[in-house]
Amino acid sequence: MTGDTSTWQQYINRGLAELDIPSVPAMLYEPIRYMLTLGGKRIRPLLTLMAADLFSIPDIRQAVPAALAVELFHNFSLVHDDIMDQAPLRRGKQTVHEKWNANVAILSGDNLLIMAYQQLAKCPADKLPAILETFNTVATQVCEGQQLDMDFEASSTVSIADYLHMIQLKTSVLLGGALKIGAILGNASEPDAEHIYDFGVNVGIAFQLQDDLLDVYGDPEQFGKQRGGDILANKKTYLLLSALDAADVETRSILHKWMETHDQPEKKINEITAAYNDLGIRQTTESAKQSYATQAYTALDKISCGKNRKIPLQTMAQYLLDRST
Amino acid sequence: MTGDTSTWQQYINRGLAELDIPSVPAMLYEPIRYMLTLGGKRIRPLLTLMAADLFSIPDIRQAVPAALAVELFHNFSLVHDDIMDQAPLRRGKQTVHEKWNANVAILSGDNLLIMAYQQLAKCPADKLPAILETFNTVATQVCEGQQLDMDFEASSTVSIADYLHMIQLKTSVLLGGALKIGAILGNASEPDAEHIYDFGVNVGIAFQLQDDLLDVYGDPEQFGKQRGGDILANKKTYLLLSALDAADVETRSILHKWMETHDQPEKKINEITAAYNDLGIRQTTESAKQSYATQAYTALDKISCGKNRKIPLQTMAQYLLDRST
Repeated sequence: MTGDTSTWQQYINRGLAELDIPSVPAMLYEPIRYMLTLGGKRIRPLLTLMAADLFSIPDIRQAVPAALAVELFHNFSLVHDDIMDQAPLRRGKQTVHEKWNANVAILSGDNLLIMAYQQLAKCPADKLPAILETFNTVATQVCEGQQLDMDFEASSTVSIADYLHMIQLKTSVLLGGALKIGAILGNASEPDAEHIYDFGVNVGIAFQLQDDLLDVYGDPEQFGKQRGGDILANKKTYLLLSALDAADVETRSILHKWMETHDQPEKKINEITAAYNDLGIRQTTESAKQSYATQAYTALDKISCGKNRKIPLQTMAQYLLDRST
Repeated sequence: MTGDTSTWQQYINRGLAELDIPSVPAMLYEPIRYMLTLGGKRIRPLLTLMAADLFSIPDIRQAVPAALAVELFHNFSLVHDDIMDQAPLRRGKQTVHEKWNANVAILSGDNLLIMAYQQLAKCPADKLPAILETFNTVATQVCEGQQLDMDFEASSTVSIADYLHMIQLKTSVLLGGALKIGAILGNASEPDAEHIYDFGVNVGIAFQLQDDLLDVYGDPEQFGKQRGGDILANKKTYLLLSALDAADVETRSILHKWMETHDQPEKKINEITAAYNDLGIRQTTESAKQSYATQAYTALDKISCGKNRKIPLQTMAQYLLDRST
């Protein structure tokens, strides 16, 4: 992180801390304050500011409301996804629907989404229609991605292409959108706004593949999640789908057998991991990840501004894709 | 309804029918299509068009996207409220969470809210910041109203003033906001936009009091709901709170006794209705309703345009407040 990005993170954290969140009704606003103090890396709003800076916005603070909108939207989607996924923990703390109840999580999530639009409304009027259009498109795609993710849980015919499409919608377009909104605020040309969007989407897919890898091959201490959590939840990750694809009949039937049971969790993790190792799934996934990273850097290269200005975004992409946490 | 309003209703219905709703993921978009074909009176979007016309918008079709946004928002709030209230029926048909499940209702509701903003983004750019601000304020107040409504269910100390505050947020501000957005599109002055907002809010409160009355004193055949539904659900309506307020110690203890039980539903409805009759609660509520109606007409009077132009809004208010359905 450069000196600039640490200043920008301060703008984001201060902006979130200074949101004028009422105290009543407490059951509506307390969960919102709770979510926003759980922390998180604030990557998405930072991308908005970084993109605005790349295109030399005169005062980066003009982009802070849009950055906050992106972070509020992200938190809205976490609160609602956690209900749907029945997730007990978020960032090591109780999820909203666990700490309170599902109704509280539905309504405070709704209000987080509205608060995102309250921030967007503060964007310069001449940029507002384009920003709103980008934001709305991304928002509805994120809903589509979440629905596909839920559909896939119950489906036995998910292909690798289906999975990549789903994670593009559920995870990646928000990174692309966060960057594109910053670019619009920085007066980028339309082709440049598309290039930075493509950069973000490809980084996002690679980011999710890294997440899939860390579940099995990460250091649980650093990653902060239980090793093999995806395996135990029978999540159709890139690793599992690639393994099913590459396996011979015998190994595939072993994988299917494990996917149908919740018994012997430790053995399940070990045997599926062994199958991954035999099939070279770690390398398969690493090379897919690398291919998306390459596409991301190609898109970044196309942006019509000096190479040096692009270094912070390159650094950020490397940070996201090499991360162990 | 004048000839104009029937044309406008066609614009609204055609606009809703022509929304470009994708077919996949089916579990996201089918419930949205389902909700939008359940019908409803489309009062709120009509108010937006009526307000735009009051202030002589050159082409009423410019206000259709904002009107659709209001209707989409209303449907979003119905889908999510029905989950929270565990309502089995909406407009005589299964609610979304009953027909599918709660997860489907959460996510398709979210997408309805985003679709509302997609329509708002089509408003003329010079009006967009003001429209977005009005819409966002109303949207968050509707969430606050829903939370208060849920809080009141568990509270034994709800006052009449608390109740009026809750229904203002949950129901009335959306009528006011629908009108104000139309006024902004019609280039109304700021004071006029406030007057029409006040008109809508007061009509909205009177409208809810009429709803409370119809539960007990309406014709169930016409009203389309079971008589005494609010009584059986122990809803703290204006009638119940006024009765608790006016009752002597003995009657109040009878009311409390019934509020603690779900037994003998028919007897419960009859005895509580008898208490209302003894205490003159129908008249109390009618006169409160009339007082809000008067405040609404006073606000309408203040708007700086010819009296004749205001007739359609007066007619609409009368229709809403005298309705038996």
